[in-house]
Amino acid sequence: MLSTNKKILIVGLGLIGGSYAAALTAKGFEVGAITKDEESITYALAHNIIKHGTTVVTKSYVNQFDLIVFALYPHIFVEWINQYGHFINKKALVTDVTGVKQAIVEQIQDKLAPVEFIPAHPMAGREVYGVYNSSKDLFVGANLIITPTNKNTQEAIDTIKSLGELLEFKNIAILSPKEHDEMIGFLSQLTHCIAIALMTCKKSHHLVEYTGDSFRDLTRIAKINEEMWTELFLLNKEELLAQMDLFLQSFTKLQKAIASDDVSTIKEMMKISTIRRTYFDK
Amino acid sequence: MLSTNKKILIVGLGLIGGSYAAALTAKGFEVGAITKDEESITYALAHNIIKHGTTVVTKSYVNQFDLIVFALYPHIFVEWINQYGHFINKKALVTDVTGVKQAIVEQIQDKLAPVEFIPAHPMAGREVYGVYNSSKDLFVGANLIITPTNKNTQEAIDTIKSLGELLEFKNIAILSPKEHDEMIGFLSQLTHCIAIALMTCKKSHHLVEYTGDSFRDLTRIAKINEEMWTELFLLNKEELLAQMDLFLQSFTKLQKAIASDDVSTIKEMMKISTIRRTYFDK
Repeated sequence: MLSTNKKILIVGLGLIGGSYAAALTAKGFEVGAITKDEESITYALAHNIIKHGTTVVTKSYVNQFDLIVFALYPHIFVEWINQYGHFINKKALVTDVTGVKQAIVEQIQDKLAPVEFIPAHPMAGREVYGVYNSSKDLFVGANLIITPTNKNTQEAIDTIKSLGELLEFKNIAILSPKEHDEMIGFLSQLTHCIAIALMTCKKSHHLVEYTGDSFRDLTRIAKINEEMWTELFLLNKEELLAQMDLFLQSFTKLQKAIASDDVSTIKEMMKISTIRRTYFDK
Repeated sequence: MLSTNKKILIVGLGLIGGSYAAALTAKGFEVGAITKDEESITYALAHNIIKHGTTVVTKSYVNQFDLIVFALYPHIFVEWINQYGHFINKKALVTDVTGVKQAIVEQIQDKLAPVEFIPAHPMAGREVYGVYNSSKDLFVGANLIITPTNKNTQEAIDTIKSLGELLEFKNIAILSPKEHDEMIGFLSQLTHCIAIALMTCKKSHHLVEYTGDSFRDLTRIAKINEEMWTELFLLNKEELLAQMDLFLQSFTKLQKAIASDDVSTIKEMMKISTIRRTYFDK
């Protein structure tokens, strides 16, 4: 178990980093933060989200922590490790929240060794950003995916599991980085691509008054932070493009069946669709 | 206005027909029903949804009604009119609830003349079927589209508007049959095609524990009555295929942009998507 005498550093006080900080402070840990703008620190101090924080990365500050959680855009995470990784205490554990894994895990493990990096991805988020929207309850009932490699020790993996339990994640799963990226490519990235394509394919403003729940449901996630998602898409390009192809095959099969009045193919797809969807009823 | 001394016939006591009957009975009208199975009549009588009903179509029963609402599958509606249309009182008004218009409106107007047929489409539904799930409140706050042609009189259109107001629809809009079919092809049929394709493109059962709201939202409508929707798709084939093409162009544009690291196209699509989606916030 993770005892509260461990000092925890959050790097990147956005929505996710801020929520880690808020939850861990509420659980009695001493939480520090490094982030790029002073206002986030000020806010986090004022709202008892962190005990202390800084915008200036120094060895003396970084070196005091036992556990470090990186909650940065992927390329900034990689740059940070290249620039400041050697500041990290050799006995510390490092984890992250990054939404893509194959693109970053190995290079960060190699760079940090002998410090151990146990990659993780909390499947939680909101359509708003910043520490100002963070919440100590953001992860309650959500899923946490840990994606260790053969470089990781069971002890370190167990510590990150404990961290997940402490934050009240509902399910904590272990996947390989590749399994993770394929799953995220399908469940999250492909669905965002579909929503974007549906929202951009036609000027639909004049249809607002006729719109029922179907169109609203399919486009809810069409509001998207273009900086973050472009980076996530491109860092998971291979898996995402493969999932997009799968979807396209199915969509064009249905389109051809409709074009050729192929009733049996249409009905067969609808039957499979109906049965499979029942698995996802809550 | 529609006065309660008008006798109203519902043909087809399913979810929609049953809900029309229940609402109109509650408003004080004498409502009769013709439907194919005796059990629906028995249930509707027992639950005060109709005053009387029959499974046998006779001239003497049909002829007594001032207003007739057809709530049948499109091809059954057309067959019914061909077989029994001459039973309808020459002073009666006829309307419907059919989800496609160009495929049926003209032929039914021609067949029924001089009886006037004012086509309509209540944009309401549930994922369950039958009179057993009907509700007098199904249309409260929903949209009603009336799709008249140059064969219709203003008086008859106004009567069907009054019927919509009585049922407490929120918006009552007038569209041409073509405008209706294009709108339905985009907002409803295309979204169902996307949900079906997403649900059938990959065996996803093992992903249930990782699934967040995005995938659930995009596939909610993947549970689908294959008899009804196959018929609706094929009767609106031309409009639906055009909408599917529009979506495909947008989706493959995004796919190509991702494949070629075309950051500016990806971000541009995301920005447009984000702005447009705000129009649909409730």
